[in-house]
Amino acid sequence: MTLPVEAWAEQVRAGNVRAVSRAITAIENHQQEAEALLRLLFPHTGQAYLTGVTGAPGTGKSTLVDRLAAYYRKKQEQVGVVAVDPTSPYSGGAILGDRIRMQGHAGDGGMFIRSMATRGFLGGLARATAEVALLLDAAGKKQVLIETVGVGQDEIDIVRLADCVIVMLVPGLGDDIQNMKAGLMEIGDIFALNKADREGADRLEQQLLAMLSLVMPRDGWHPPVVRTVATENKGVEGLAETVAKFRMHFEASGERQRKHVEHWKNRLLELLGSRLLDRALGGAAGKAKLAALAGEVADRKKDPFTAVNEILKSSGLAS
Amino acid sequence: MTLPVEAWAEQVRAGNVRAVSRAITAIENHQQEAEALLRLLFPHTGQAYLTGVTGAPGTGKSTLVDRLAAYYRKKQEQVGVVAVDPTSPYSGGAILGDRIRMQGHAGDGGMFIRSMATRGFLGGLARATAEVALLLDAAGKKQVLIETVGVGQDEIDIVRLADCVIVMLVPGLGDDIQNMKAGLMEIGDIFALNKADREGADRLEQQLLAMLSLVMPRDGWHPPVVRTVATENKGVEGLAETVAKFRMHFEASGERQRKHVEHWKNRLLELLGSRLLDRALGGAAGKAKLAALAGEVADRKKDPFTAVNEILKSSGLAS
Repeated sequence: MTLPVEAWAEQVRAGNVRAVSRAITAIENHQQEAEALLRLLFPHTGQAYLTGVTGAPGTGKSTLVDRLAAYYRKKQEQVGVVAVDPTSPYSGGAILGDRIRMQGHAGDGGMFIRSMATRGFLGGLARATAEVALLLDAAGKKQVLIETVGVGQDEIDIVRLADCVIVMLVPGLGDDIQNMKAGLMEIGDIFALNKADREGADRLEQQLLAMLSLVMPRDGWHPPVVRTVATENKGVEGLAETVAKFRMHFEASGERQRKHVEHWKNRLLELLGSRLLDRALGGAAGKAKLAALAGEVADRKKDPFTAVNEILKSSGLAS
Repeated sequence: MTLPVEAWAEQVRAGNVRAVSRAITAIENHQQEAEALLRLLFPHTGQAYLTGVTGAPGTGKSTLVDRLAAYYRKKQEQVGVVAVDPTSPYSGGAILGDRIRMQGHAGDGGMFIRSMATRGFLGGLARATAEVALLLDAAGKKQVLIETVGVGQDEIDIVRLADCVIVMLVPGLGDDIQNMKAGLMEIGDIFALNKADREGADRLEQQLLAMLSLVMPRDGWHPPVVRTVATENKGVEGLAETVAKFRMHFEASGERQRKHVEHWKNRLLELLGSRLLDRALGGAAGKAKLAALAGEVADRKKDPFTAVNEILKSSGLAS
């Protein structure tokens, strides 16, 4: 099917599921069309509210995200879910997973779920996630939920896309809360203490509150702790209301706008970087040259700095 | 102290702890001197064997790495340890941690430990870790241990530097082994089942072996599972012997050389990318331009692709 990109963009804006799915695939595969499409859609974005949900494996992210999605659907808001799993660098299984998750929302046209796994390209996942979020925004999803296994820098980059970040914790995972949460503590706008009916929940909440008391409030916001039992749909409404409170707080203070400018600075840098790399190494000759130089460097016949200067010179990009 | 870079390089090669420390700081801070130094040292590298140790928080990585280091020291091999913690994007505490860890090796000149936290620059941590590993290699550390909290893409990039990757698991962490280990399964050359005296160790080992049986052996190597209790120094010798076995296997097959070429391909790409970005946006004017464009994009006055084309044109890099 060769649909003109303008017609495709119209279908995306109308929320056509197949058009959106194909657009995501185009983004993931770095197809040229993706850029043309996003260029057309861009003026129609900026309407969605992005909520990031992150936490260690086993904290119940998917369940919580599904429950939040159902909550927004009940309020007649259209929902998009992007589940990012950087732990699967070689992909696989994502589509099956989406099918299983969609069963709970079968026949609901106001709901869109997509999983993404790492494709191995440079800085790729955060960028692709951001582009998919834009696309869902253009498709009229007013609530976009971004779910990612949280620990590394890549997830932190992904979650920074979001307007509001929910960090999930559960009792009994690991020996010591301080072990892993240094980074997460600082990016969390709201903490969801999930599986709150389990042993150790009270102690975890106390530890959490003690740690949070050490974190500087950002712009007058003290990250609250919300207890949930996502599997039983307990506390989910309260969590969604806390997100709404956070949203009001930051839209009033102008902090959201500041964050968006910062976000676009980073996005432009990434885009610029990949453009320049394409220019320096575009085509088969560039790739062959890179492979040859890598071999020489591995054999210590040439140092990496000299090798890079050679590429710059031969591509006409040297200063 | 303004030491000529040649003299500094000599001191690094002699294993002078202060010279090595200062060089790592220069790498972390992206100082110009770092490149000059690495250029001089590069021909003297390629002697170290890099072992990566990764696993979820709470699996006991630091303890195991310390034990492995002690094992190599007993064999009179010089050891360098790089502990990378991408969960601390805002840094802090690393130096104190190093001091505490060094106490166990007090006065041992053949042992060097350094922690690194994310500095927030683009693709920075994997690159800095790779450069620090080169430096330790040049400083005569025949065994370099790279320890990182494992889950995200960034850690996977870091651990891919290594010649041999040990993935750590412990019983009772999280509900389901399959939850988190898809990515780790594929990068592990050896699996260390730590805290193997705990309840659930046998079951975890069975699950692990079942999953590993599904992973294709690479170049004839079936990743083995080694049980350890690092705190009691149990199984550490067996683990080190398994690393040695893996090393022999891959040096014989030529796989190590292939991996090195692949590694240098990625490194050259990163280096090239950061060079080009410096050219496109170098100086205060470039930064101001980026900030202004980011503001326009955030306000939807301009799409990101048009913005990037403007930067390319104004820097003379447009094709």
